Amino acid sequence: MATIGVDLGGTKILALRCEDGTVVARHRTTTPRTPDGTVAAIHEAARALGLEGVEAVGVGIAGLVRWPEGSFAWGPHVAGSDLPLRIELEGTLGVPVVVDNDANVAALAEHRLGAAVGYRNVIMVTLGTGIGGGIVVDGRIYRGESFAGEWGHMLYDPHGILCDCGKRGCWETVASGPALVRLAREVIELNPDSSFAVRFADTPVTGEAITAAADAGDEIARGLVAQVGAHLGRGICSLIAILDPEVVVVGGGLGSVGESVVAPARRVAADCLHGSAHRMLPPILVAALGPDAGAIGAALLAADHVEGVSEARR
Amino acid sequence: MATIGVDLGGTKILALRCEDGTVVARHRTTTPRTPDGTVAAIHEAARALGLEGVEAVGVGIAGLVRWPEGSFAWGPHVAGSDLPLRIELEGTLGVPVVVDNDANVAALAEHRLGAAVGYRNVIMVTLGTGIGGGIVVDGRIYRGESFAGEWGHMLYDPHGILCDCGKRGCWETVASGPALVRLAREVIELNPDSSFAVRFADTPVTGEAITAAADAGDEIARGLVAQVGAHLGRGICSLIAILDPEVVVVGGGLGSVGESVVAPARRVAADCLHGSAHRMLPPILVAALGPDAGAIGAALLAADHVEGVSEARR
Amino acid sequence: MATIGVDLGGTKILALRCEDGTVVARHRTTTPRTPDGTVAAIHEAARALGLEGVEAVGVGIAGLVRWPEGSFAWGPHVAGSDLPLRIELEGTLGVPVVVDNDANVAALAEHRLGAAVGYRNVIMVTLGTGIGGGIVVDGRIYRGESFAGEWGHMLYDPHGILCDCGKRGCWETVASGPALVRLAREVIELNPDSSFAVRFADTPVTGEAITAAADAGDEIARGLVAQVGAHLGRGICSLIAILDPEVVVVGGGLGSVGESVVAPARRVAADCLHGSAHRMLPPILVAALGPDAGAIGAALLAADHVEGVSEARR
Amino acid sequence: MATIGVDLGGTKILALRCEDGTVVARHRTTTPRTPDGTVAAIHEAARALGLEGVEAVGVGIAGLVRWPEGSFAWGPHVAGSDLPLRIELEGTLGVPVVVDNDANVAALAEHRLGAAVGYRNVIMVTLGTGIGGGIVVDGRIYRGESFAGEWGHMLYDPHGILCDCGKRGCWETVASGPALVRLAREVIELNPDSSFAVRFADTPVTGEAITAAADAGDEIARGLVAQVGAHLGRGICSLIAILDPEVVVVGGGLGSVGESVVAPARRVAADCLHGSAHRMLPPILVAALGPDAGAIGAALLAADHVEGVSEARR
Repeated sequence: MATIGVDLGGTKILALRCEDGTVVARHRTTTPRTPDGTVAAIHEAARALGLEGVEAVGVGIAGLVRWPEGSFAWGPHVAGSDLPLRIELEGTLGVPVVVDNDANVAALAEHRLGAAVGYRNVIMVTLGTGIGGGIVVDGRIYRGESFAGEWGHMLYDPHGILCDCGKRGCWETVASGPALVRLAREVIELNPDSSFAVRFADTPVTGEAITAAADAGDEIARGLVAQVGAHLGRGICSLIAILDPEVVVVGGGLGSVGESVVAPARRVAADCLHGSAHRMLPPILVAALGPDAGAIGAALLAADHVEGVSEARR
Repeated sequence: MATIGVDLGGTKILALRCEDGTVVARHRTTTPRTPDGTVAAIHEAARALGLEGVEAVGVGIAGLVRWPEGSFAWGPHVAGSDLPLRIELEGTLGVPVVVDNDANVAALAEHRLGAAVGYRNVIMVTLGTGIGGGIVVDGRIYRGESFAGEWGHMLYDPHGILCDCGKRGCWETVASGPALVRLAREVIELNPDSSFAVRFADTPVTGEAITAAADAGDEIARGLVAQVGAHLGRGICSLIAILDPEVVVVGGGLGSVGESVVAPARRVAADCLHGSAHRMLPPILVAALGPDAGAIGAALLAADHVEGVSEARR
Repeated sequence: MATIGVDLGGTKILALRCEDGTVVARHRTTTPRTPDGTVAAIHEAARALGLEGVEAVGVGIAGLVRWPEGSFAWGPHVAGSDLPLRIELEGTLGVPVVVDNDANVAALAEHRLGAAVGYRNVIMVTLGTGIGGGIVVDGRIYRGESFAGEWGHMLYDPHGILCDCGKRGCWETVASGPALVRLAREVIELNPDSSFAVRFADTPVTGEAITAAADAGDEIARGLVAQVGAHLGRGICSLIAILDPEVVVVGGGLGSVGESVVAPARRVAADCLHGSAHRMLPPILVAALGPDAGAIGAALLAADHVEGVSEARR
Repeated sequence: MATIGVDLGGTKILALRCEDGTVVARHRTTTPRTPDGTVAAIHEAARALGLEGVEAVGVGIAGLVRWPEGSFAWGPHVAGSDLPLRIELEGTLGVPVVVDNDANVAALAEHRLGAAVGYRNVIMVTLGTGIGGGIVVDGRIYRGESFAGEWGHMLYDPHGILCDCGKRGCWETVASGPALVRLAREVIELNPDSSFAVRFADTPVTGEAITAAADAGDEIARGLVAQVGAHLGRGICSLIAILDPEVVVVGGGLGSVGESVVAPARRVAADCLHGSAHRMLPPILVAALGPDAGAIGAALLAADHVEGVSEARR
């Protein structure tokens, strides 16, 4: 079966054409700044990949999505609100469409094909412009009434900085690409002569550039990534206290989210685990599907839809 | 069918004998300070209520309980750890026993018989010596790998005070009976001549006494209860972001947990709801079963066990 | 000798005509929102009081004043910056003028005529729209290079709210009229049915109204004033560690700054005094001259100027 | 004239013999853990340097010293309290003795012979086990009633960690040798494989070792020193708001306190200066006398005493 999966994030759109479980084509573009642009861009991506033979399209979007209606309620990083995305796309594309939260479908993908294969109760934490979350219970996406998994906006520090969502001290204000950039800027300002500052003299300070520097062995960059990892681990500890999952998968677009961020997270989580003397810390794993997880998961969800896999309201 | 339900909290044990859904006898005692004492006290309570005709005993305990083994792993407010409570009690009592977390069974009770009748996705927040939590998904208790719902130890303020669990800034450090007592003591120290301070000149400053004063119209007490309610509401907002439940029920032993604490919680939760312009705040209800919820829920769980109601691992 | 003293605060201007140590006339007006308006308003006030026989005019202004030039550098609560106030007023009024910080002259007045008579090393803390400060060392105003005493902008809480000055967490963000108003609004929002909230249903929530309610016995109001007093006392502790004065005087325009705010401040200061087991807490006294202290001090400074009292650079 | 100056810090005692302004001999020992040991150690140091021809001995001690009595009231880092040090030493040594706070005499030394020559209003901040402070006004030590300059215990963060003095969040908890060590340990724990961690695998993590690593070009160490420098600068900003000095001198025993810590401090202070658009940041200079400043200043104070230089009560 051929399906298309689309991952619509705060900065970019990735679309994949999958045939019988294999990615056969890909298309990448920048996220438009208007709701109309968003619909057009998805249409354009699907057309570029070819709709012939495609039985369904799945879309994962960064924000609150009403399930199973597939309307985009709102998200701090994507234009538009209360947008009937599924209906509009079905009209444009002429095939069945399913629309879900981007981290939900990424969790599904990691559960089916990635780091969480063999686990039935999974939480997935995605790091990017913000923090996204997906929950898999007994092998199926758990959505609560629709919007479960929005732990990027769990309170983390009542004295913290303002979040893009308008509240103060959400978890994603300290564990995300922008948080990493903020830390880097402070270091550069305090030590303008350091080799780290020199490295960024002519290069934009982005999350990707910092994680790339960390991967290249820059120790200041590694220290900053570890700080973000520490906050990641502290928040994961709260999620473990609340959900007690079998496994935690960390993915998302923050450069190569890998051991440089997850190792410190694991150390902090082990320190802070509630009842740590009487239980095991669940595995905290790096996502296996990389930045493709969302689009692959959207394609999987589309295939499930075609096959009538029971995806009840929750 | 006759069952016995036992609620084993940080300060007291309540045991109820239920026959065909009705409470026919009750027994109350103080929680012992030793693990052996705990088993003996439950045995004693069951004997006092009469074991004749009882088909099963259910126990809810404040802390981490391994499900379905029914062993008590640990809890900051109850003596003992890694205690095979279910096995020991079955040996002593000679009937089947089920042991679960106290807030889990309270949630079950409110779902079946209390404030959350008619809702299928429920979270229950219990206020007492700490904060307990229970999750009902599709009408059944959700436990994750065993210990889900321990949101009293969700990080709430990284700069906060030490929690009984050993970590800093857990939610229950600001929303619980002890938190209320701490606020009251500060007020008394700053204003030793106030009528509020005079009221407590010869009376121990307990959570119950403060909520009683609030219910009696003392405006300082009402103000303190509202502060605790505000922290309750802020934390519930995080839970809604994470779980998106149909309904939130607030109960527990903090005096008469009622509108004096839940009304401010609701106001704060409405202010802080993630995506508040695009979704509804779920109802935040006062528990209907009062301090009996835990013991009733334990009895219900025991009856389910007898009837073979599918309570899979989670 | 006749002099005029003017106290130019963030909300109002008070001018007094003093003859041989006695206030013989007073004039009060609202602080204009423009620099030109400020000069005109002082001119108008002096004319209203009568300039006949007046040998000098003294002005105390809320903000940074260059001494002895008498130019107003800047202040978060008064319009204008780098304003050559002394020179402009001498041109307009035709008599010698001295211009100083408002809390400096209030400290001088309390030292000469008020609560600090008999003490030679005094710090004065004024509570109003913000916190002002004046230091008297060996009987003379201490100004450092010019701007000493601006402890309202001492860091008090790095996680605190934004101050009118643009920085975060200055002391005056928690100990001032606006801080009191903020606390009151939170209480009203949390408990809209309380008698405190009802009292302010049709009355603007101002610092004066809240302190008036406290003085009238409203216990919620007293509790809020005590909270501000606690922050006042904690900051005074820092000042004692830094300056070790003989006496601390608390005054300013926050309603009747009296024991309702100073008693809690004293309790907190006694608790937090550095080395408290080995030293005495200096007296923390309520100002004796009330809201007139600034204008009286300005008149005293003017008289000193006429008499050639050595007021060296500092 | 020959005098001996003694600097009695939290970890070591340095004694110098000075003749006509020149250091001719030095003696260094560890600070004893008992009050009796302290007196004996000073006696021993003076004897080792030779008392022949010595006209007076000056002692600077880390803590609260009553002036002019010369008794040591208390200090969090030195054994003993309410110790009549001047009287005991005069009895032992047979020459006049003056005893003052260590940072006071360091400030005097920097004012007369070091970085602050030519300035009349100086504040000196010493970084070591804690933060010490000395104030020079019009060329003379300013002591208030005795204990001025104890800004290490100014409140810096109400949510901060416990200070050795027993209070929470004092400035020295974030700007001192122990603060630097704490930061280093966190970095090592988060990144146990980093070259910084490897460097300390077999070396004790001390403030001196970290600053030495920073001076040797270790960028992680430089980053940590810069963090301490940032807190130093933020606190200096409060002191400038309060005292408006001509110059700030930073010295003390934290390794080579130099530009690695003072440059970031200066950057932060420039950012946070109250009224920064309308005034200049005073110079923030590295002390010129290094770790000898306290002992030299004590010798200077002893010489002043002999020469009858008016050192009035304050």
